[in-house]
Amino acid sequence: MAPTKKAGVLGATGSVGQKFILLLSEHPDFELFKLGASTRSAGKPYKEAVTWRQTATIPELAQSLIVVDCKSSEFADCDVVFSGLDADYAGEIEKEFSEAGLVVISNAKNYRRVPNVPLVVPLVNTSHLDIIDRRLKAADAANLPKSKRGYIICNSNCSTAGLVVPLGALIAKFGPISTVTVTTLQAISGAGFSPGVPGFDILDNVIPYISGEEEKLEWETKKILGGVGENDTFVPLSNMQVSAQCNRVAVTDGHLECVSIKFASEIKPSIEEVKQALRDFQSEVQTLGCASAPKLAIHVLDEADRPQPRLDRDRDSGYAVSVGRIREDPVLDFKFVVLSHNTVIGAAGSGILIAETLLGRGLL
Amino acid sequence: MAPTKKAGVLGATGSVGQKFILLLSEHPDFELFKLGASTRSAGKPYKEAVTWRQTATIPELAQSLIVVDCKSSEFADCDVVFSGLDADYAGEIEKEFSEAGLVVISNAKNYRRVPNVPLVVPLVNTSHLDIIDRRLKAADAANLPKSKRGYIICNSNCSTAGLVVPLGALIAKFGPISTVTVTTLQAISGAGFSPGVPGFDILDNVIPYISGEEEKLEWETKKILGGVGENDTFVPLSNMQVSAQCNRVAVTDGHLECVSIKFASEIKPSIEEVKQALRDFQSEVQTLGCASAPKLAIHVLDEADRPQPRLDRDRDSGYAVSVGRIREDPVLDFKFVVLSHNTVIGAAGSGILIAETLLGRGLL
Amino acid sequence: MAPTKKAGVLGATGSVGQKFILLLSEHPDFELFKLGASTRSAGKPYKEAVTWRQTATIPELAQSLIVVDCKSSEFADCDVVFSGLDADYAGEIEKEFSEAGLVVISNAKNYRRVPNVPLVVPLVNTSHLDIIDRRLKAADAANLPKSKRGYIICNSNCSTAGLVVPLGALIAKFGPISTVTVTTLQAISGAGFSPGVPGFDILDNVIPYISGEEEKLEWETKKILGGVGENDTFVPLSNMQVSAQCNRVAVTDGHLECVSIKFASEIKPSIEEVKQALRDFQSEVQTLGCASAPKLAIHVLDEADRPQPRLDRDRDSGYAVSVGRIREDPVLDFKFVVLSHNTVIGAAGSGILIAETLLGRGLL
Amino acid sequence: MAPTKKAGVLGATGSVGQKFILLLSEHPDFELFKLGASTRSAGKPYKEAVTWRQTATIPELAQSLIVVDCKSSEFADCDVVFSGLDADYAGEIEKEFSEAGLVVISNAKNYRRVPNVPLVVPLVNTSHLDIIDRRLKAADAANLPKSKRGYIICNSNCSTAGLVVPLGALIAKFGPISTVTVTTLQAISGAGFSPGVPGFDILDNVIPYISGEEEKLEWETKKILGGVGENDTFVPLSNMQVSAQCNRVAVTDGHLECVSIKFASEIKPSIEEVKQALRDFQSEVQTLGCASAPKLAIHVLDEADRPQPRLDRDRDSGYAVSVGRIREDPVLDFKFVVLSHNTVIGAAGSGILIAETLLGRGLL
Repeated sequence: MAPTKKAGVLGATGSVGQKFILLLSEHPDFELFKLGASTRSAGKPYKEAVTWRQTATIPELAQSLIVVDCKSSEFADCDVVFSGLDADYAGEIEKEFSEAGLVVISNAKNYRRVPNVPLVVPLVNTSHLDIIDRRLKAADAANLPKSKRGYIICNSNCSTAGLVVPLGALIAKFGPISTVTVTTLQAISGAGFSPGVPGFDILDNVIPYISGEEEKLEWETKKILGGVGENDTFVPLSNMQVSAQCNRVAVTDGHLECVSIKFASEIKPSIEEVKQALRDFQSEVQTLGCASAPKLAIHVLDEADRPQPRLDRDRDSGYAVSVGRIREDPVLDFKFVVLSHNTVIGAAGSGILIAETLLGRGLL
Repeated sequence: MAPTKKAGVLGATGSVGQKFILLLSEHPDFELFKLGASTRSAGKPYKEAVTWRQTATIPELAQSLIVVDCKSSEFADCDVVFSGLDADYAGEIEKEFSEAGLVVISNAKNYRRVPNVPLVVPLVNTSHLDIIDRRLKAADAANLPKSKRGYIICNSNCSTAGLVVPLGALIAKFGPISTVTVTTLQAISGAGFSPGVPGFDILDNVIPYISGEEEKLEWETKKILGGVGENDTFVPLSNMQVSAQCNRVAVTDGHLECVSIKFASEIKPSIEEVKQALRDFQSEVQTLGCASAPKLAIHVLDEADRPQPRLDRDRDSGYAVSVGRIREDPVLDFKFVVLSHNTVIGAAGSGILIAETLLGRGLL
Repeated sequence: MAPTKKAGVLGATGSVGQKFILLLSEHPDFELFKLGASTRSAGKPYKEAVTWRQTATIPELAQSLIVVDCKSSEFADCDVVFSGLDADYAGEIEKEFSEAGLVVISNAKNYRRVPNVPLVVPLVNTSHLDIIDRRLKAADAANLPKSKRGYIICNSNCSTAGLVVPLGALIAKFGPISTVTVTTLQAISGAGFSPGVPGFDILDNVIPYISGEEEKLEWETKKILGGVGENDTFVPLSNMQVSAQCNRVAVTDGHLECVSIKFASEIKPSIEEVKQALRDFQSEVQTLGCASAPKLAIHVLDEADRPQPRLDRDRDSGYAVSVGRIREDPVLDFKFVVLSHNTVIGAAGSGILIAETLLGRGLL
Repeated sequence: MAPTKKAGVLGATGSVGQKFILLLSEHPDFELFKLGASTRSAGKPYKEAVTWRQTATIPELAQSLIVVDCKSSEFADCDVVFSGLDADYAGEIEKEFSEAGLVVISNAKNYRRVPNVPLVVPLVNTSHLDIIDRRLKAADAANLPKSKRGYIICNSNCSTAGLVVPLGALIAKFGPISTVTVTTLQAISGAGFSPGVPGFDILDNVIPYISGEEEKLEWETKKILGGVGENDTFVPLSNMQVSAQCNRVAVTDGHLECVSIKFASEIKPSIEEVKQALRDFQSEVQTLGCASAPKLAIHVLDEADRPQPRLDRDRDSGYAVSVGRIREDPVLDFKFVVLSHNTVIGAAGSGILIAETLLGRGLL
């Protein structure tokens, strides 16, 4: 069945853009239609504009697409635009696009903290897309033209995406979590390619610092797991404490996070109940039958030494997360390890799933 | 000045034994006198018995020493014996040595939990050696022969050694710590060489599990930071909660640990006071002027992205620890990162410093 | 279409065996039917017997297959048996299997040098399988029972497999090559898992030695590119000099080899002709339409810095080789870099392609 | 004994400059006197200007030195100036310095091919410094002022430095070598720090290309091993063929090179004679007693699997090279593996040794 929706990609030559192109190139619903990049690249066939750094070759379809400037007029025919832009450019460009009536799904951090912009990890809080639903219905009622119907949806920071999936699953089953501590061991692909993390800094080494990452992880978690308040603005959880320590390690892909949690309730589930809740967890992308939805949102691994980035990051093509080493914590209630593919469910893949959810809900 | 004390090394061909030999080969106080290994190696010159895997070449002196069996009779002339034996062998052999009147400083785990065996991290709890002092005085009083004056002192697990140094420094200044959470990123040299961690398991990967490590880290910390009770037996802290998550990463040497702590007292120091306490910290090995004592026990690093294993593990030749990223913790009181050289201060070097302390106290 | 031929795997729990199982688990022609391993594993479901170390999960089908002993009686119903046995065991077991009438395709080195055993790199010398054809016709003529129709076919050493593909292509087009020098940079997966290459030996390091590898590379190349002589025995090339230097590098999968060649003829092709010959090269597995045959046997890469193991090893699912940096050589005629996936076309995948060729020729 | 000569460093904040500072900070002959860097850094204390990336901490002395602009007027008091400038800047600045009468020892490539500029690998061709000797004598005779006595000496490319040491030793003993093929496995520190080789390009990977490296290796080898012709200009060897293939591997420090050679003479030495010639090799830096000269210029290693970068790069503090795996070559005469520390003997250390040689000869 041929794709029915036209998709654009902003920042198409960057690392996130390249991943969007890979994921879209054989997508059943979306047709790779427009590629936007810097003025330096505009006018060139994509093949010549890009320094391709993926393990799969450039999709045939993308090779000869002529790169265009990141202006909404170039993307007027697109049903959805995926943005892999750097934060330096995303702010202005995504604004211009949404104000021109386009639907922008962004991997950039710029609008994540805006109160009425959904910050969505698709395995967790697609319910936040309800405000889009209401907004479009209101637009229908007001008979607004297409140019007034644009909006931005953000996906989360890559390390946040892995963390909130088991948190969301556990909260859904056992109620509020009061305390979360998380130490991350993050892959270098999260820092992009040019130059990203210098080889001399990461070989035989760990870098115990990623600029801005801990703040993002601590803050975004609360918005994603939070609710919707007055005027359809999001209200981050105020009664959950989150403490993050972030490290870069010599891994190409796959963020591993060591997590401890405490439930708010005095009545604690057993370890077996925790495992079962994670195994049973289902997200809207699965019930909607989204094309990229993982069969299993959370792979619960029983082996003592799993999950491991190299061995487990590609489960369900990187759209699932893996959780292992679930055990009691002498300080909080439980501790466990979660692994997520930082460039799939933690970045481009998350954007794709958001678009698939919009489509599945009839909003695209 | 020529060394005055004769030293033996057990498990001399293993990874810890090799490090003992390197550290002893140019030591001002100890003479490398006897090398013990398995029966398979006994009788061979060390050079032929060992598969040397250090970055420095085999010390001249050691090359032609004939390896002997691990029997106390072979080591009768040694003033001190350093044991780098595997746990499989250490139990029996170290017992036989100490019962024959020898002083054994062991890197093995076998006797660490024995109530009257000191478990010593030399930058932290050399006060635990007081019981040796008292025991030897009692032996003098009773006129006991040398054969009744043997004993075992254990150094800690490598990941414990890094953790307890800042903990000890902070407790010394600000009183008890009630809660510690720690996530480790440990180097592969901690697992030895043959085979140690398989390359295929660690390249482009993290292994979120080290057998028995979390238990050791949680338990040993409490004994080391605890006190001495009745009958000169050690009493682990009972009012401190410790939770550890241990990971193996692709680093050759240097354990990095992300730590969060909460003080027992309601009155908290400021970040600057915490930093100053760490900077000012002095241990007995320094005041005694031990040959291998670091100039600075704790290097407090102010750069945002330090300590890093490759860049900081060799500070003070690996006998110091480095602490960085000291900041407030939204869940507990403070969080920071500590780095220690796992084969120096975390293993063989720790044993050397213990022996130097005994010597400095006049106990050898 | 359901598979029509029953396949067995020997050494099923080892690294090559695991790869055979992955490749066979969704194969259109072969049904994974029997798994043989050591007596220690026999009787257990495969899932329990194996320490699985692949990036894909254990195929459903294999998980519950009961592992059997490596005895021909257990494999009597198999149409073909793939052997991933270690050389220590392969000699005896493969002999027993072939003498019992079974078709054994072996990854072990034991029988590679036997004059009437084909040593086949399927992209290069499937013509060597002609002797099997003749042997089976003779068996038909003599009305031999199945038990007299067993035989062994060997695939080559992993580093040989990559080298001979471009050599074979160039010889096919431009005639004999008189001189080959090759320096390899080999991945650690070639050494297996338990323990394989120790992590401490390969992190931040190169090991400029692989036991027996240079001899294999030099010798096997001559047999594979050689012809068939009297009595259907293979005659290695005598007029080609090959010199190999083999290194192990910190790469998980993918052998990269820097090659220089000199043609025997005084008349030399141009660089463009060399490239074109490589691009145009077609092997029998492609013309037969074998299920796993690569679309392109040789990917000729024009970028200055390719092929690279991480980026190019999976082209055509690892069944193709990549050649780049083709240029004139100041010493010999041409130099270039070839990359091959050492566990696919360099090991298990090669075995599969050999079996597919037999099937395509009607010999299975 | 206090240093007697004042030394300047150009490009002091870069990777080569940092190494110069480390090596000079405790040098018996040279005092670290002036540090030059870009205008952006000028005026700042070195500690604030640099992003230090060495495993040793910034030398006390250097920390508070105020960085100056790279103008000869700032360096007028220096007896020697070491240049770690990037090629983009080295051309103009080094020219200005030498024309102002300063002695410049440069690690940049800009002047290496100039016929009357010595290109010196100090373990090999300090004889090329004779032209400096003659030039200064002529200046004396002509009573030239200091401002007319400046000159530039270049050290070689890092991969060249390792190769020519055994070549030079063998030629000195057995006469001309007609053919050299070399495949390199080069460390990433050779590419500098900011950014140098991106981590994402080198983790789990090899890059079979380093821009301009093969040309340098092929050409420089011929100049270094060549002689001095008319008018004191250097004449590269014309009768030696060199073919190089260069690769970047995941190693921090230490270039490993797989070399094959053919002697011009029909009479070949034996392998033992080759080994002995390498072991016996002495260079002028050793006979002059230069402060940084290695005890042994060439460490000949007999173990089958050595030299290895991590284990052997620091022999003689990185000022020696290691050669192993010496064996007959089926194509040329002999093959072997050579390892050199690319930032010591392959870069900054080479510059230091050149200056020490000038000093030892009374030319500074």
